Amino acid sequence: MGEFELIERYFTRTARRAALGVGDDCALLAPAPGMQLAISCDMLIEGRHFLPTVDPFKLGHKALAVNLSDLAACGTKPLAFNLALALPSADDVWLDGFSRGLFALADAHDCELIGGDTTRGPLAICITVFGEVPPGQALLRSGAKAGDDVYVSGTLGDARLALEVFRGTRSLPQAAFDAARARMEQPTPRVALGLALRGVASAAADISDGLVGDLGHILKASRVGARIDTSIAIKLIANKVHLTMGDGQFDSKTALACVLAGGDDYELVFTAPPDARNQVKAAAVQAQTPVTRIGQIEAAPGLRLVDAAGQLLARRFAAFDHFA
Amino acid sequence: MGEFELIERYFTRTARRAALGVGDDCALLAPAPGMQLAISCDMLIEGRHFLPTVDPFKLGHKALAVNLSDLAACGTKPLAFNLALALPSADDVWLDGFSRGLFALADAHDCELIGGDTTRGPLAICITVFGEVPPGQALLRSGAKAGDDVYVSGTLGDARLALEVFRGTRSLPQAAFDAARARMEQPTPRVALGLALRGVASAAADISDGLVGDLGHILKASRVGARIDTSIAIKLIANKVHLTMGDGQFDSKTALACVLAGGDDYELVFTAPPDARNQVKAAAVQAQTPVTRIGQIEAAPGLRLVDAAGQLLARRFAAFDHFA
Repeated sequence: MGEFELIERYFTRTARRAALGVGDDCALLAPAPGMQLAISCDMLIEGRHFLPTVDPFKLGHKALAVNLSDLAACGTKPLAFNLALALPSADDVWLDGFSRGLFALADAHDCELIGGDTTRGPLAICITVFGEVPPGQALLRSGAKAGDDVYVSGTLGDARLALEVFRGTRSLPQAAFDAARARMEQPTPRVALGLALRGVASAAADISDGLVGDLGHILKASRVGARIDTSIAIKLIANKVHLTMGDGQFDSKTALACVLAGGDDYELVFTAPPDARNQVKAAAVQAQTPVTRIGQIEAAPGLRLVDAAGQLLARRFAAFDHFA
Repeated sequence: MGEFELIERYFTRTARRAALGVGDDCALLAPAPGMQLAISCDMLIEGRHFLPTVDPFKLGHKALAVNLSDLAACGTKPLAFNLALALPSADDVWLDGFSRGLFALADAHDCELIGGDTTRGPLAICITVFGEVPPGQALLRSGAKAGDDVYVSGTLGDARLALEVFRGTRSLPQAAFDAARARMEQPTPRVALGLALRGVASAAADISDGLVGDLGHILKASRVGARIDTSIAIKLIANKVHLTMGDGQFDSKTALACVLAGGDDYELVFTAPPDARNQVKAAAVQAQTPVTRIGQIEAAPGLRLVDAAGQLLARRFAAFDHFA
């Protein structure tokens, strides 16, 4: 199978929204009149972003999901995407699974593949995704104000827990592992929530490198600080019941580390003024996505982790950094 | 140096055209009212698209040049680009050179970096480039008609010749090698020519995998064939004077292979009706880019290579294929 046969067999569909899709030097896309185009890009490398043993169907899902998550964080509607693929070989079984997983999620979000590139090389997947948003309505990292509430969507930390099982540092009952593994391998981009939060949230980011790091981006861009109640945050890990130590006690240290700095969650962290609490609730209901209020934005820079009594925790958590 | 420091130090500039540039979950780009956005993407892998020893400044140039070449082939004006970078390490010397080469070419085309991704991994560079074009004016591969002339811009085959010198199958005098190497390492995207050919050319593609392969894309998309005069094409290699065999005779076999199937040329191949010959000449003058008429589109499918007397050549040439 040659390069162009590969593209034709697995990645060519009739252009719907695009004026010109796969198969020319460029794709042509016309955003609706007056709309801004939101653009984001994530590259996934084997051994770094996914295990070599991952089911290609799930990998196809994840590669697009992590990109849609960026559109969600900006409150933009997915339109289309580009796919660049470096493959060690043209493996039919792999390509079939990968493309099915990719298109299943793409179709669920009415997001069209409009072009890309294929080459031979160590397995790498680079997707650039395009969304649209009315001018001035995108959710940015820079809009948080002192006094705003801090929220996160869904659950946090289970993807990291699954990774630790793969690494052999933890074990889980099969059903709990399957659920955690699904969080790691097939994250749910919070597109509906991002759209529902337009005009409600003051700032938003998606959580890819851990809550501490990604909330940190909001704090830095907004030039503010925050206080997070770890007694609430710690409950966000779905698998808390299985997080015990040798003596059967709840392993709060691991739970908190997974929640605050686990990474690979693809939930949203966002802020909104206290008088918008009902609107946030309504957005969560509309998007059928649970949200939890975990703290507050403060004028003083820095992130303060506190316990239920408001006492500062001494422990520090770092965001995932590819080069640190 | 961490991931975000790396981005800040080497890849963050103030947004000019973009509504929002590097540093949020998405970039925001608003095409001018009524304009279509042209999008293209090329991934470069070390050892496959460039030698590990290449000067990072030149690599920065080339990574963007091959993408701008796709915009040129569609007759679109460069606006902005995204950069995804997988790096084995955060090497300051490499990053400094790469980013300078990248931005030197970007600035020359007023093309703005609006976002991207960095990760650790085997060296891979994935750029997605954005251009704009009025609806209906993009040059497509599908517009060639029987009777149209076939043209190419610039020179062909010298990039491949340089590669053969690197591989040790050829040698060249130093000055000739330097010139050929510049063609391989720092190709010139024919953006001005692509723009000048709007409304003149009936079809166009850029030559990345060799003339035979890329003209083949036009023929397939346009459902036509072509006849190419190899006695003209063979003169397109700039280094013809040094292409001799042991006996001092001109090595026409190698010259033709380099011109027709060498790859990495990043010139344009395009078609235009015979009554547009003066307009093609005017476009070439306006863009300060030489163009050469090398053949004609025919109704019968397939590519026919003929000599000066119109006799069919028996030899076949294949396009570069990453998976063949």
